[in-house]
Amino acid sequence: KPPKHAMLSTDKKVKAPPMVYIAGEEMTRYACDLMVQKWFQPYFDTSAWQYFDLSCASRDATDDQVLKDAVQAGKDIGAIFKEPTITPSALQVKQMGLKKAWGSPNGAMRRGWNGITISRDTIHIDGIELGYKNPVFFERHAVGGEYGAGWNQVGKGTLLTTYLPKEEGSPPFVVDKRDLTDDHNVVVVYHNPYDNVTSLAHLFFGRCLEAGITPYIVTKKTVFKWQEGFWATMKEVFDKDYKEKFLEKGLLDKCGGDLQHLISDAATMQLIRWTDGGFGMAAHNYDGDMLTDQIAQVHRSPGFITSNLVGKKDDGSLIKEFEASHGTVTDLWNDHLAGRDTSLNPLGLVEAMIGAMEHAATLDAERHSGDGGKLQTKDQVFNFTTTLRTALHNTFRYGQGTRDMSGPSGFTTEDFIEKVAWRLGRYLSMQYDESPPPTLKEPDRKYRRNYDIDEEAVSAMFAKYDKNGDGFIDFEEFTRMLVKMNLAPAKAKPTKTPDV
Amino acid sequence: KPPKHAMLSTDKKVKAPPMVYIAGEEMTRYACDLMVQKWFQPYFDTSAWQYFDLSCASRDATDDQVLKDAVQAGKDIGAIFKEPTITPSALQVKQMGLKKAWGSPNGAMRRGWNGITISRDTIHIDGIELGYKNPVFFERHAVGGEYGAGWNQVGKGTLLTTYLPKEEGSPPFVVDKRDLTDDHNVVVVYHNPYDNVTSLAHLFFGRCLEAGITPYIVTKKTVFKWQEGFWATMKEVFDKDYKEKFLEKGLLDKCGGDLQHLISDAATMQLIRWTDGGFGMAAHNYDGDMLTDQIAQVHRSPGFITSNLVGKKDDGSLIKEFEASHGTVTDLWNDHLAGRDTSLNPLGLVEAMIGAMEHAATLDAERHSGDGGKLQTKDQVFNFTTTLRTALHNTFRYGQGTRDMSGPSGFTTEDFIEKVAWRLGRYLSMQYDESPPPTLKEPDRKYRRNYDIDEEAVSAMFAKYDKNGDGFIDFEEFTRMLVKMNLAPAKAKPTKTPDV
Repeated sequence: KPPKHAMLSTDKKVKAPPMVYIAGEEMTRYACDLMVQKWFQPYFDTSAWQYFDLSCASRDATDDQVLKDAVQAGKDIGAIFKEPTITPSALQVKQMGLKKAWGSPNGAMRRGWNGITISRDTIHIDGIELGYKNPVFFERHAVGGEYGAGWNQVGKGTLLTTYLPKEEGSPPFVVDKRDLTDDHNVVVVYHNPYDNVTSLAHLFFGRCLEAGITPYIVTKKTVFKWQEGFWATMKEVFDKDYKEKFLEKGLLDKCGGDLQHLISDAATMQLIRWTDGGFGMAAHNYDGDMLTDQIAQVHRSPGFITSNLVGKKDDGSLIKEFEASHGTVTDLWNDHLAGRDTSLNPLGLVEAMIGAMEHAATLDAERHSGDGGKLQTKDQVFNFTTTLRTALHNTFRYGQGTRDMSGPSGFTTEDFIEKVAWRLGRYLSMQYDESPPPTLKEPDRKYRRNYDIDEEAVSAMFAKYDKNGDGFIDFEEFTRMLVKMNLAPAKAKPTKTPDV
Repeated sequence: KPPKHAMLSTDKKVKAPPMVYIAGEEMTRYACDLMVQKWFQPYFDTSAWQYFDLSCASRDATDDQVLKDAVQAGKDIGAIFKEPTITPSALQVKQMGLKKAWGSPNGAMRRGWNGITISRDTIHIDGIELGYKNPVFFERHAVGGEYGAGWNQVGKGTLLTTYLPKEEGSPPFVVDKRDLTDDHNVVVVYHNPYDNVTSLAHLFFGRCLEAGITPYIVTKKTVFKWQEGFWATMKEVFDKDYKEKFLEKGLLDKCGGDLQHLISDAATMQLIRWTDGGFGMAAHNYDGDMLTDQIAQVHRSPGFITSNLVGKKDDGSLIKEFEASHGTVTDLWNDHLAGRDTSLNPLGLVEAMIGAMEHAATLDAERHSGDGGKLQTKDQVFNFTTTLRTALHNTFRYGQGTRDMSGPSGFTTEDFIEKVAWRLGRYLSMQYDESPPPTLKEPDRKYRRNYDIDEEAVSAMFAKYDKNGDGFIDFEEFTRMLVKMNLAPAKAKPTKTPDV
């Protein structure tokens, strides 16, 4: 039960701390509007949210001034929620009648907010097992690498790369000189700015330590020797400020008592083997791009992974932008427009909203330290987000989830949001009861009547039928088992299916 | 039953076509020696094999002349088998008392043999299901990318990259000019030579077409625009020479009737989802490095994936070097030295040996076209390799495999090789019988007595217990099912385990 001052009711709305709200397009915009209206606005006055419409139409109408304004506002306020947006293709430019193909807003945001890292973590639902049992954290360096490369397509000849130091008196020198002997080559040049790797290290290790997660650093430095600096900085920060704390918590027990380096291609293998989770990885930009998509798929889908851009203001405070890892879900939007039922799982969107609200409240309280009102608001926000998460998770657990989780009997987009709103209201109001009834949770299946199972014997049976020993009984093994047990429904003679 | 002229016996050894045999180190060298002795040499006179010892000691003693010689021999002959070798670390240099840290031989080989692609395909055992049900093919561009990058670590300043054409009269131009504002940067420059992508395309599509596999091209060209040329060349070759043939065989049915491009990060997701296999991917060098390691892990381990470097001689004939994807297996070697039993699965080594022998025979017959003796040898080699593969697979299927496949009761390294040798001899001699008994194969389980199963009903039951619909019944689901079926062994009252 939270302290009295952190409780909320619909009678007196709390003024939500300022944050930037970037609206996008299609199905996710529709769902976010509904969630804001049904979940947040009954308890919060959101008038301090600064709203920017980053739809194609809006960017077109303002000649992209809206993007510049949003970036500036994000820089000022420091907490940003962003809905999925559309980066229009040539076809979409035509269909929407745009002046031009407005590019991805990501570059402007990463630059404007001094992006250090894109944090991408697995999202979990209490009591429902997904691909990784425990959280997997990922820091993807937000700058550098081939994303900002210069390049050209060239024929035979020589490529000369020269560095001219800014420092007066330092002579220029040749970085690389190569002869190109093919008729058709592409040449590529890029740089990795490493100044912010120290900040990345603190963010990463801080997060891992707090969550009880074992950190790994992923590079290809064994072959790409220039990546050594990334590892060296991470290791230095770790040894100086974190190693002892990680050792104390036993978080290095499974990796030899020290921070471990993983070669990037080996990391693709570990991501498949380490399904227990409980580990974190920090990597360069492109490796992070590849590996986090793999994590998303092992865990379940991009809907179950966060995407948070973390930058830094000049005063040292963190700018954090929170978004879902998926797009605008065009197919469901088309269904919706055609009047058909939809069932959008909003988990990634909700986690982003929660993250933005929490960071907004934290920043606001920090900026007005000593202001008891701000502290109360912060506690109210955190009580709200925690309760919302519980309401959301329990709705999934009661089989009232969206159809991607609960099957064909699952709820529609609207019904699901309504159901969570109802449960959220119930949980929040229960906090006021003098002696509250226990919070409703799904009972552990092991508590059920007749659950007097000999797990060891079951385990032996399982192993017997799991012929290939992969930890699963697949369809073939299942069939074989039924045959063995004489339970397989026979074809020839019509027979009653056993009452299961 | 093969034609009479293709049969083999120990009475009269066949002269094996010339190939380069590169020996390596530790456990894999020991196992390869045994296999050559027990499997190949009873039927083949291997005196035309050119043998090069690429152990650290040998490279050290010859000042690496042995590597140069091996590369030259490979260039002349065109068919190479290579055992795993050790690229010594600083510690190993000391332990072995080497003059220097001899580098990986890969670079010299790729250059010397004009490497186009490294083909890495899943290895399958008939009748045993692994990660991918059907083969997965992969072509990794053998040149270009960051492996050959020039780089430096620099501070603030300007980086200028200029291209000077070889063609007279063409003016030089600036490829890239960038200001570096961080105190600590690394700058990286590389090129992708694309001339051999046409050859790569023909190799890839030819292989896919022959095996009935759907091809995909993987790049990050949506962001890394310079990669467009890779895709464009692949598409051009496909449209011109292959599209119709793929359409005829129905191999484009599941991908919209055309060659498909996959973005590299999306490819990491598909590799996890497409466990049916039956697809191929072609990619740049680094993407191929990452993705093939992922494939190895999804399929089972690096022991179940090939690694074949394909290059081209000036006369257009293909140089092919075959190796296993794993290392020298130091831990088993230490066990062996200590007198303990070992159980090395030689599948990857055997596939490499088979590949090299087949390519050697093919080249030899091509070079002496019209020479009936060479054609006979080729047929004998292919009869041998096919029979060896069958003997190997069946040994696994009879539960006489190595312990990684058959569990603790599996065979030791030596016993397994002996068993395969025995079975190989049996199969080859059976070919001489006038009316041979049917080849021993494991009967399909469906042929068994009582197999009158209604697959549809079984399917429905399976779906019922596969709660999360992932196509598997995991331990939790299995337990739930037993409880439901009243078959779960109970803890409290001692009870007889059902006769299963």
